[in-house]
Amino acid sequence: MSKEIIEPKITLVGAGPGDPDLITIKGINAISEADVILYDALVNPELLKYAPIRSKKIYVGKREGQHTFTQQQINTLLVDYAITHGHVVRLKGGDPFVFGRGSEELEYAELFNIETAIVPGISSSIGVPGLQRIPVTHRGITESFWVLTGTNSEGKLPVDFHLAAQSGATIVVLMGLNKLKEIAAVFQKYDRGATPVAVIQDGSLPTENIAVGSIDTIEEAVRIEGIRSPAIIVIGEVVRKNPQAAFALSYEKELLHDTTHSSQ
Amino acid sequence: MSKEIIEPKITLVGAGPGDPDLITIKGINAISEADVILYDALVNPELLKYAPIRSKKIYVGKREGQHTFTQQQINTLLVDYAITHGHVVRLKGGDPFVFGRGSEELEYAELFNIETAIVPGISSSIGVPGLQRIPVTHRGITESFWVLTGTNSEGKLPVDFHLAAQSGATIVVLMGLNKLKEIAAVFQKYDRGATPVAVIQDGSLPTENIAVGSIDTIEEAVRIEGIRSPAIIVIGEVVRKNPQAAFALSYEKELLHDTTHSSQ
Repeated sequence: MSKEIIEPKITLVGAGPGDPDLITIKGINAISEADVILYDALVNPELLKYAPIRSKKIYVGKREGQHTFTQQQINTLLVDYAITHGHVVRLKGGDPFVFGRGSEELEYAELFNIETAIVPGISSSIGVPGLQRIPVTHRGITESFWVLTGTNSEGKLPVDFHLAAQSGATIVVLMGLNKLKEIAAVFQKYDRGATPVAVIQDGSLPTENIAVGSIDTIEEAVRIEGIRSPAIIVIGEVVRKNPQAAFALSYEKELLHDTTHSSQ
Repeated sequence: MSKEIIEPKITLVGAGPGDPDLITIKGINAISEADVILYDALVNPELLKYAPIRSKKIYVGKREGQHTFTQQQINTLLVDYAITHGHVVRLKGGDPFVFGRGSEELEYAELFNIETAIVPGISSSIGVPGLQRIPVTHRGITESFWVLTGTNSEGKLPVDFHLAAQSGATIVVLMGLNKLKEIAAVFQKYDRGATPVAVIQDGSLPTENIAVGSIDTIEEAVRIEGIRSPAIIVIGEVVRKNPQAAFALSYEKELLHDTTHSSQ
């Protein structure tokens, strides 16, 4: 009988926004050395082709009508598989540390003295607007970008949206589609109704879809385009750089102009 | 005589923070099809190994004592090479749209109706803290992260730092090392002197170095560690997740405690 020595290790790997070619070389190297892969709903399953045939591939994402793992269950699975199988790659959509709870998984692993490693990924907060030619920064337009969750751990919109609406930052919101009305209301409170907004669904995938409007009109634009989650909201003058924005926003101006006329 | 048809194209490619394995598959594919590559100071020259042997490789970054290209000269080079040589890959450090002036290059190319494409990169604003085990977000600690330049187009610290210091966001500053004193002063104004800070030089490279402290002590820590540009500043409670932070910040507490005693 031969005895195999198991060397437990957990690597958090960012899989990027969805296009399987938007993972890093380092990410692929980690997958190709994995004994076990735990992957999320936002990870493109095509990436599993890089994994050894003998490796276990375990889906731990949320999917309608299916059993959902709690964060504690995922933490436990990571540690258990590392101890029993060796190298576990935790493959997460975007970057592991952008609203991915990667940090919690890392901390849990460290409780068991398991070796850990990090491979950053393309965060959809930057990459998805970029692919739509919306630069999160542009000299002379904005000196910063601010990425917020639309839904905090209490299920609410973070109060910092009030500061965001007063700042000159490009605002990027993840997990915020069902809070769009509330977000718009905050910006309207600070007289930002005319600020351009883009909402991008399935960024970098063939199913990608975008709605462009202003704070005042974006809900209607999202409804017309039939945008669904997962979607990213981008708020700021940089949205005008998107090729569809010129039309969407000039048309809107015309509509507003007409309204002004008819109310005279 | 054969006639070659030139198809002008410009692809902006994010090269990531420095580690040559932190570029995407899509980025490497673009490099491998390039006729000309224009690359920056922050791009790892190792990435040029993926380029065709016959391709032109042109360094357009800033380097001490050398001729520096202006942005307009780079824009012109991009367009001229696309027209005369075909596919130009513009290889930029990090992500092309995070303070990289990529958007300006794109706009200039579009003036000449040249086909353009975007390949996002790992932005050092997220990836570099992550590699130091500092998550830009962590459930229960922060609901957002805000990335600002330390040096705006007028050479100044953006006024939004005053909002940043009042927010609960993790603050990430690029090009801010020589403004560290000024940044600390803004945070001190809002009673944030005890907030943890990390300054990371050459993130993801073998020469990587980090200084950890609080707003009140970070200048001293940076001096002791001999941190130089390019460096990234991370401000927020998430900095405590860095393995060196526990020691650096507890030691500091002790020092402050001693000071209190001696002043009695």
